[in-house]
Amino acid sequence: MVTFETSPDRYRHWKLTVDGPVATLAMDVREDAGLSSDYALKLNSYDLGVDIELADAIQRIRFEHPEVHAVVVTSLKERIFCAGANIMMLRGSSHGAKVNFCKFTNETRLAIEDASANSGLKFLAALNGICAGGGYELALACDEIVLVDDGNSAVSLPEAPLLGVLPGTGGLTRVVDKRHVRRDLADCFSTLVEGIKGKRAVEWGLVDRVSPTSQFKKAVAERAAELAAVSDRPAAGPGIALTPLNPTMTADEIRYSTVSIAFQRAKRTADLTIHGPSAPPPASADEILQAGDAFWPLRAFRELDDALLRLRGNEPEIGTIVIRTTGALESVLAYDRELLEHQSHWLVREIVHFMKRTLKRVDLTARTFFAFIEPGSAFAGSLFELALAADRSYMLHDDGEENAIALSPMNAGPLPMSNGLTRLQTRFLGDAGKIDAAFAHGGPINAGDAEELGLVTVAPDEIDWDDEVRLAVEARAAFSPDAMTGLEANLRFAGPETMETKIFGRLTAWQNWIFQRPNAVGDKGALKAYGEQGRPEFDWKRT
Amino acid sequence: MVTFETSPDRYRHWKLTVDGPVATLAMDVREDAGLSSDYALKLNSYDLGVDIELADAIQRIRFEHPEVHAVVVTSLKERIFCAGANIMMLRGSSHGAKVNFCKFTNETRLAIEDASANSGLKFLAALNGICAGGGYELALACDEIVLVDDGNSAVSLPEAPLLGVLPGTGGLTRVVDKRHVRRDLADCFSTLVEGIKGKRAVEWGLVDRVSPTSQFKKAVAERAAELAAVSDRPAAGPGIALTPLNPTMTADEIRYSTVSIAFQRAKRTADLTIHGPSAPPPASADEILQAGDAFWPLRAFRELDDALLRLRGNEPEIGTIVIRTTGALESVLAYDRELLEHQSHWLVREIVHFMKRTLKRVDLTARTFFAFIEPGSAFAGSLFELALAADRSYMLHDDGEENAIALSPMNAGPLPMSNGLTRLQTRFLGDAGKIDAAFAHGGPINAGDAEELGLVTVAPDEIDWDDEVRLAVEARAAFSPDAMTGLEANLRFAGPETMETKIFGRLTAWQNWIFQRPNAVGDKGALKAYGEQGRPEFDWKRT
Repeated sequence: MVTFETSPDRYRHWKLTVDGPVATLAMDVREDAGLSSDYALKLNSYDLGVDIELADAIQRIRFEHPEVHAVVVTSLKERIFCAGANIMMLRGSSHGAKVNFCKFTNETRLAIEDASANSGLKFLAALNGICAGGGYELALACDEIVLVDDGNSAVSLPEAPLLGVLPGTGGLTRVVDKRHVRRDLADCFSTLVEGIKGKRAVEWGLVDRVSPTSQFKKAVAERAAELAAVSDRPAAGPGIALTPLNPTMTADEIRYSTVSIAFQRAKRTADLTIHGPSAPPPASADEILQAGDAFWPLRAFRELDDALLRLRGNEPEIGTIVIRTTGALESVLAYDRELLEHQSHWLVREIVHFMKRTLKRVDLTARTFFAFIEPGSAFAGSLFELALAADRSYMLHDDGEENAIALSPMNAGPLPMSNGLTRLQTRFLGDAGKIDAAFAHGGPINAGDAEELGLVTVAPDEIDWDDEVRLAVEARAAFSPDAMTGLEANLRFAGPETMETKIFGRLTAWQNWIFQRPNAVGDKGALKAYGEQGRPEFDWKRT
Repeated sequence: MVTFETSPDRYRHWKLTVDGPVATLAMDVREDAGLSSDYALKLNSYDLGVDIELADAIQRIRFEHPEVHAVVVTSLKERIFCAGANIMMLRGSSHGAKVNFCKFTNETRLAIEDASANSGLKFLAALNGICAGGGYELALACDEIVLVDDGNSAVSLPEAPLLGVLPGTGGLTRVVDKRHVRRDLADCFSTLVEGIKGKRAVEWGLVDRVSPTSQFKKAVAERAAELAAVSDRPAAGPGIALTPLNPTMTADEIRYSTVSIAFQRAKRTADLTIHGPSAPPPASADEILQAGDAFWPLRAFRELDDALLRLRGNEPEIGTIVIRTTGALESVLAYDRELLEHQSHWLVREIVHFMKRTLKRVDLTARTFFAFIEPGSAFAGSLFELALAADRSYMLHDDGEENAIALSPMNAGPLPMSNGLTRLQTRFLGDAGKIDAAFAHGGPINAGDAEELGLVTVAPDEIDWDDEVRLAVEARAAFSPDAMTGLEANLRFAGPETMETKIFGRLTAWQNWIFQRPNAVGDKGALKAYGEQGRPEFDWKRT
């Protein structure tokens, strides 16, 4: 079982040091400390465990170290930055494990870019040695890249020529779409096992600058200081501590303080419940700071995030998840007002972006989500985003018309999907009038109105409810899981594509295809043949 | 061996009738006339042969019938519009055949939308009966859809629930991105085997209107007349005849009048050569009309198009194609000027859009293209697009500096890629200054300047040329063909995504993935189990 919580004192592969406004996140992978003993993490190669620490470190810098304005990402190993994902680990992984590994590493890279775009935290990749594959993809996620010019250190994406797979963490997309490397040069680069070094790496746009060994540390420190100087983060702390979530684990349930997920394994379904706040929000930003990670929105979304990761990583056969909420609409709306009122405060900003990233994690989870909206639920504002993220929503049309949902300004901008649109914009693509109509309604929206406004999928009455929702879940759970994954990946992301959606749509879909192909994973495939005697043998047919 | 040329007198599955400004394209599939005798094309289901006729018909309406302003797409079978792609055909097809089948049908649907967007030709899908899967996807490609309201006829996308695959011809994308069907309703619709009929199909946005059986023909005729009335096509003909290409076929070569493709099968490479015009262009639009399909740009691009289709369909192991041109730069530029001068003429408009579609076919061909630019070549203007479409271009830097390329206004807009950008915009993404610099150069551009301007990938000198290009091709042809397909699909489409690129990137990539999965194509998979005894058995793991 994989767990996703860690903390700096438990890191085995990274060293996080904070020196005034500049943090240094240095990779120093312990060969013998992989998640499995089947492989050794040589040359700063990584597995999911290494990336879980990286994700944690980025998160903690955002919440625990507001005084940090720039992060240097480097390595403690001599002449090696990072050799990328460990090949023996990939070779020994199931298809699903490979796909989820790539998804998590992609989300972590995008979290780096999110911090840069939205939190005033700039990242400098300081490549002190060879930087291959996923190592270079980590660098690509940073704002700037400086490469040591020692006559040897190169950046490279050797996956395609060497292993017959794609760089799986956004490399191809970022090379052309973020760094604007010319597509023909990108083609040469991505098929060159030894990579590109020195001046040519700058000319092609693969790195921002090179620096001789003797001046490398100084150049990095100077540039990091410059990047830190433009930040709008606070000059000093304190931050808040992200304390352990400590869920209660039983055979069929994970129970957190505000979230629970219960598995019906025989049915391949799960019930995910989020409890709304039980107390009114703090009265000021200072009180939010004092509440720290006990502040309901942060607590609830951290727990939701952890539940989603455990679901993905440990429960592959759970295909259909029913989302419910409990509590009072008005309580959630009060927290939404609080978040919006203090959104310029660094911590509130961090919390809202974290909620956004967690909701994106829902969008990107390859499982079906149905939201069940029943009396006593709290699908208001930011929690209503869960119903909008779901593939379908079922709302009980009760005789008394008391069952209700509610919108808040949190549905109108602060929590965009990875396509850059809000979930309401994606839902009502090309018809802004329907969004206006929904907001114009005001107040709680009962089932009849919600259905009329298009805010829920179906609103069965009390007579039909039990059968209809039961049959919907049963039918869904009986379909081909692959077809559902493909279906959802296409229907969820209507509208524009962004670099982020290209990474999860175009790049990942092709990578998943290749991860199935005998030319990669067959007995004679490139991923199997690497490091063994003999060369791979390919079926030469192109499609 | 599949061939892609046909003509209305040879159609077995479609009937094309022209009645003034309205053409009717009626599907009447002959069960026993599939490309293979392994399956019967029941219920107006189709295989590649049926779609080749459809593509031909659309093309001929554009070129041979300028007086046609609207096209009714319907069926001659009682109570059946179209049951979609033939399932037994899919089941018996190799992975590559499935992928190429979907690619061709997608290109045909997009050609319908291209005719609507750019040629003043509107399409009305007249659904006279059940319309399932690929049948509905064909309707989705039309401008409007009218469905008979007979209490029985429904539209449906039953692929995912019934066969464990995706609708492979853009259906999921067009439902949400073109017709703006709400994503949760689209989810319900795409998992409902029996589909949606009548008023609800209109409410959900799946069709534009329904019409009772008794009024159906009249409603279709009236709406077709209205659509025809807004066209800017000529009121009367004549069009031009698209005559047979009649290539000379030998074991290792296909030779047309202006194009040849020679296969080195042992090396898995091919040489594709396009000969520039040998005579000056006609002096007027009338003379272009008289020249008809002998007019060089139309002739050359028709031959190129056919060569690409034969390459895809019949030569799966040819992975790397070297593109060369012969002739004089100035001759090509003269034709480019002619095309631009008369671009408002209906025929010239058709020719330029056809050139555009052919170049898109290059972009979307899952083979590596290298352009070799040598003395005596004619990489100017519209032919230079081939070098820009190539994954790399090699230009001989001759001592005499006579080897040259040239740009024309055809490189600046009329021939966009499917991402909506020109190939120069995609190449210099985010740096319009480089495009300006290339055009500011003026006149022929020698190898040194072309490399400096970033218009070619590499410009080896005479000493290095032979070895460098030989090694480049050999290295490319030795890589995993799947990895190259994925690499190219990601690097070629930098920049924005459109509905068109989403269909080929996101949707197709997921479909290709599913087409590999045991849950679809394994012995117990849904595609294998359909129509057999027993239900499919799934590996329930989601990714």
